[in-house]
Amino acid sequence: MPKPIVKVCVNGYGVIGKRVADAVMLQDDMKLLGISDIAGDWRIKMAARKGYPIYCSIPEKMEDMKKAGIEVEGTLEDLLKKVDVVIDCTPKNIGAKNKSIYEKFNAKAIFQGGEKHEVAGTSFVAQCNYEEALGKQFVRVVSCNTTALCRVLGAIKQEIGIEKVRAFIVRRAVDVWESGKRGIMNTVVPTIGVSHHAPDVKTVLHDLDIVSVAVKASHNLFHLHFCLIKAKRSIEVGDIIESLEKAPRIVFVNSKDGIDGLHAIFELGRDLGRMRGDIYEIPVWKDSIIVMEDEAYLAWSTPNESNVIPENIDAIRAVTEIEEDWRKSVEKTDKALGVLKKFY
Amino acid sequence: MPKPIVKVCVNGYGVIGKRVADAVMLQDDMKLLGISDIAGDWRIKMAARKGYPIYCSIPEKMEDMKKAGIEVEGTLEDLLKKVDVVIDCTPKNIGAKNKSIYEKFNAKAIFQGGEKHEVAGTSFVAQCNYEEALGKQFVRVVSCNTTALCRVLGAIKQEIGIEKVRAFIVRRAVDVWESGKRGIMNTVVPTIGVSHHAPDVKTVLHDLDIVSVAVKASHNLFHLHFCLIKAKRSIEVGDIIESLEKAPRIVFVNSKDGIDGLHAIFELGRDLGRMRGDIYEIPVWKDSIIVMEDEAYLAWSTPNESNVIPENIDAIRAVTEIEEDWRKSVEKTDKALGVLKKFY
Amino acid sequence: MPKPIVKVCVNGYGVIGKRVADAVMLQDDMKLLGISDIAGDWRIKMAARKGYPIYCSIPEKMEDMKKAGIEVEGTLEDLLKKVDVVIDCTPKNIGAKNKSIYEKFNAKAIFQGGEKHEVAGTSFVAQCNYEEALGKQFVRVVSCNTTALCRVLGAIKQEIGIEKVRAFIVRRAVDVWESGKRGIMNTVVPTIGVSHHAPDVKTVLHDLDIVSVAVKASHNLFHLHFCLIKAKRSIEVGDIIESLEKAPRIVFVNSKDGIDGLHAIFELGRDLGRMRGDIYEIPVWKDSIIVMEDEAYLAWSTPNESNVIPENIDAIRAVTEIEEDWRKSVEKTDKALGVLKKFY
Amino acid sequence: MPKPIVKVCVNGYGVIGKRVADAVMLQDDMKLLGISDIAGDWRIKMAARKGYPIYCSIPEKMEDMKKAGIEVEGTLEDLLKKVDVVIDCTPKNIGAKNKSIYEKFNAKAIFQGGEKHEVAGTSFVAQCNYEEALGKQFVRVVSCNTTALCRVLGAIKQEIGIEKVRAFIVRRAVDVWESGKRGIMNTVVPTIGVSHHAPDVKTVLHDLDIVSVAVKASHNLFHLHFCLIKAKRSIEVGDIIESLEKAPRIVFVNSKDGIDGLHAIFELGRDLGRMRGDIYEIPVWKDSIIVMEDEAYLAWSTPNESNVIPENIDAIRAVTEIEEDWRKSVEKTDKALGVLKKFY
Repeated sequence: MPKPIVKVCVNGYGVIGKRVADAVMLQDDMKLLGISDIAGDWRIKMAARKGYPIYCSIPEKMEDMKKAGIEVEGTLEDLLKKVDVVIDCTPKNIGAKNKSIYEKFNAKAIFQGGEKHEVAGTSFVAQCNYEEALGKQFVRVVSCNTTALCRVLGAIKQEIGIEKVRAFIVRRAVDVWESGKRGIMNTVVPTIGVSHHAPDVKTVLHDLDIVSVAVKASHNLFHLHFCLIKAKRSIEVGDIIESLEKAPRIVFVNSKDGIDGLHAIFELGRDLGRMRGDIYEIPVWKDSIIVMEDEAYLAWSTPNESNVIPENIDAIRAVTEIEEDWRKSVEKTDKALGVLKKFY
Repeated sequence: MPKPIVKVCVNGYGVIGKRVADAVMLQDDMKLLGISDIAGDWRIKMAARKGYPIYCSIPEKMEDMKKAGIEVEGTLEDLLKKVDVVIDCTPKNIGAKNKSIYEKFNAKAIFQGGEKHEVAGTSFVAQCNYEEALGKQFVRVVSCNTTALCRVLGAIKQEIGIEKVRAFIVRRAVDVWESGKRGIMNTVVPTIGVSHHAPDVKTVLHDLDIVSVAVKASHNLFHLHFCLIKAKRSIEVGDIIESLEKAPRIVFVNSKDGIDGLHAIFELGRDLGRMRGDIYEIPVWKDSIIVMEDEAYLAWSTPNESNVIPENIDAIRAVTEIEEDWRKSVEKTDKALGVLKKFY
Repeated sequence: MPKPIVKVCVNGYGVIGKRVADAVMLQDDMKLLGISDIAGDWRIKMAARKGYPIYCSIPEKMEDMKKAGIEVEGTLEDLLKKVDVVIDCTPKNIGAKNKSIYEKFNAKAIFQGGEKHEVAGTSFVAQCNYEEALGKQFVRVVSCNTTALCRVLGAIKQEIGIEKVRAFIVRRAVDVWESGKRGIMNTVVPTIGVSHHAPDVKTVLHDLDIVSVAVKASHNLFHLHFCLIKAKRSIEVGDIIESLEKAPRIVFVNSKDGIDGLHAIFELGRDLGRMRGDIYEIPVWKDSIIVMEDEAYLAWSTPNESNVIPENIDAIRAVTEIEEDWRKSVEKTDKALGVLKKFY
Repeated sequence: MPKPIVKVCVNGYGVIGKRVADAVMLQDDMKLLGISDIAGDWRIKMAARKGYPIYCSIPEKMEDMKKAGIEVEGTLEDLLKKVDVVIDCTPKNIGAKNKSIYEKFNAKAIFQGGEKHEVAGTSFVAQCNYEEALGKQFVRVVSCNTTALCRVLGAIKQEIGIEKVRAFIVRRAVDVWESGKRGIMNTVVPTIGVSHHAPDVKTVLHDLDIVSVAVKASHNLFHLHFCLIKAKRSIEVGDIIESLEKAPRIVFVNSKDGIDGLHAIFELGRDLGRMRGDIYEIPVWKDSIIVMEDEAYLAWSTPNESNVIPENIDAIRAVTEIEEDWRKSVEKTDKALGVLKKFY
């Protein structure tokens, strides 16, 4: 008997939402029934161009969307009636407000990292805790930063054991699409005190001793992470490399190959030939790995627009239980999206 | 009898070269026999990943390339023996030095806008002067800025007639891939005096009265052009729109749709789904067009990495005369590359 | 009989307000009675550090200011009772709302360029139309961009005669102090259509034929202007130079001396040794001046934070009529502030 | 008997050199006999404007300097004959080459942090190891980053005791004056592996356990440091604050006062009213200090253009032994330069 096709919709067609919609289209066990938004600008017109059915998330906005020339199929509620799972990609804190609507229509919902852990109760990184999400009604795919930290640290934790982690995060200031209206300029803005990333990692890697600090820097693409990892035992560089080689969605790059910064990662992403030049993997600088006794130093890039896309796909499989084995879901997603373990 | 397949190679696998190579691969009347370069870094490894045969442009560099792990098929001269046309995408002024090698192997050569007009003798923008390039041994595809100016001004000149143009160009400072080593920061750098763009336009639109000034601004993607166009007659906004609608490779965007700057053009390019998010067209802000009697003001974006790619393909057809009609070549190229007259 | 000392206050202690306050302190015919604001952050604490009496512009904010540790002397109204002239340096459009308060206290008021011309009825650039402001109750010092345009174009108009001007303006995106919260990133944002600068110039140079276009670029200090000036007669470069040499508050810089962009102007400003590295003059690139028959091309930098400061001082003298001759006021101001006709 | 006046010259009139020259002018126990350079651009013309005697560091360049309009008094060797101490502010690695010239003229020399420790043999931060420099012929003032680390860590080490430090450094990419020719754009560039800053700190704080990592970010003013400090004992936030309050040249700022990033520090510096808006102190975010048992987290800004200027003045006193007590030298320098323990 063939597995059923999961009926999916995306609420919030922004940086994440549009990528999730495209990724759902590439899966053979899912079907995109539509996207929902409240804007009527070029971004939604690009969705229309693809033939995605468009719904309106707030009925009061429907007239504006129509005036802007969008063919609106109905309201978000009309869409929710038809789907098994909604991927909520609305801006920070809006997801929490949407939860009751999803409950009303008995739709399973995947939230993003902008929402608090408590909104869903289960936070999710596929290769770390897929099992926790099985059958749940609500799951939260953690933020790009937390996802990256969990993938890398989770791999090392599992293979080597981690005593503690001190993480330093250099964040991009805003997303590309909004860079004409928002941003920071010629400055670095520190997060005062420790950052929220460390506690957020613990919603997935529950017992990790981790502290994080963060700054916003004057660029608009990709975060950069530096981690000091104190291992549970004396280690060598090769141990770190081996543990990361075993894990999915982590790829090595080398400065000696000319990958000298975030801009080069971005250019490489475009050369990979994927939609939008997206990078789903965490590119770790292999030749930046330093080990001093039990302390390892690692640097990687976090492709903030796209690294959580595979997680959203896996989360759909987990909550619907169409796949119970995390490895099989990850493999299936990675095949569909072209996720690699080696760029070149 | 089937038309022969033109054998092509690309010398210089940088920002333009890699895009030309990919574009040649998409044509049914051309075949890419290889690319040639002197580097052995990740950029060339990405070419290897695609299966492009790799040659070495300077024999002394071959050892380094091999040491870096590149499988080198031979020297540029080995490659030139096999091809009908070489696309020279080497850095500024290197093309001029390469000319004698191309002559030695009797290869037709397409140079880029970094070379002086005199290197080729014929400068080229497909929709403006395709005929001039027919059967020539050497043709120069003009720079991204000049190509954009020629497309837009050529269309208005043909439909309406231009008395004079005063152009203002805001250039991106450096390309993305090199942004970790080069750039300008938090400044604007004016070109002292008038810029070279206006004389360069005249190598294609021979009798245009045009003066240009230019600045470099603190961004690394896309140029922005503002033109004051004094028409030969009293005009209305509709006349300008109509003339640009008739011409290929020019597309309208609107600020009222949220396309508020270069960043939005870039995001839109990525949403189009082409390789690298490339934009081959010149996006003109339709709602920025102002007409005062016989003076029109226009603003557009010049996608500096990719807008000359179609021209390189057309130039191959022109010099080999496998297509003598510019419209047919442009149509063929645009179909293969997915060039549009409307984005959404 | 000694001339009376004009009693002045500044309402709005931001980028312009703090500089005006300091500039008033340097005049021997004026006295600063206090500054008024609604914030209690470090910026106001720096005013307190200087011993400026601090008032509160909105009574409801007084408690917050006091809680932040500011010693507040009273309300704006308390301050207005004591002064002859208030310099309104509040954010855009707030000045218009303040007008009635100033009327109530019969205070003369100088507004800034963020307000519409109609708010004051008289727009002002000292060396262009000082006479118009004599004795007026309300005067508006035009924006940094308009001031720069008026100084340069006014000088050429007077000496040579101008048929028309087409101006291109590359604006800084936001001010330095707010660059951690606002900005644009890695983009250029065009003003759709023609910009407001040209009509604004006509509030001072009433009959000038001028059109302007503008973009915001990705930097936070100084605007850059390019002007195409069609003279009333055939001219030479020397004519332009001579006309600008005669006018105050315009200084030549040369790219051949290494002044290659806005960053260099800024560094030079700091080397001048004035408070905050401020530049009150308009630095015009002498070696960028190009003349073609009756058309001249000029490029200059507009120091957006400080070039209107001298105008505010002159406007105080004009409205109070303590000085009726514009040359004498400008000379007095320039001596007090150290304004130069030659940087090096 | 009055103390003798130390005769000083500055070789290399760049970002550091021009500030050192101005700082020497403000001391009553030193005299600036001249500055030496090889350029003839606006930067040197600004020195001429101040009346500083100008010498030529490389005889072959003298003709060019004169042609550029500089009045050159003689060669560097002519200048060295007259001075007791030369402050070498030439670019990285040039100082090492100059050492033999200084030896030839038996001049004491102060090198900058671009030179290796071995060039001078003694590295110097006034409040950490003044005594080591007493009477030495050669001393090296460490880099801006190292100076900042030594001041803050030295203070905590002395008062509390440090077990180890892990430092994260976000560097500005280039200096302002050169930002039209050099830079990085819209990226972050990590230093591969650990950075040189930690070993450099040990040339002053000899036995500190410190590891540092670093990135270059897309801004051109000020570095930002984050340090994780493991104390020798359990501590509270108050302990850290107290230790930093006792030390000179460290000042607290607060994000709750609106000092939200490097741009605000810069604006504050300009408001302080010093030449060029310079900041000699290390501004530490007081409300960013977090303590978890024996681990403290601190963030501060390192004003890269100016924080080593006081150190250069103190180094002159140390090598000439005109002052043997570090506290007295620091006090004297700080009074002359207006160095503060409280900004507002």
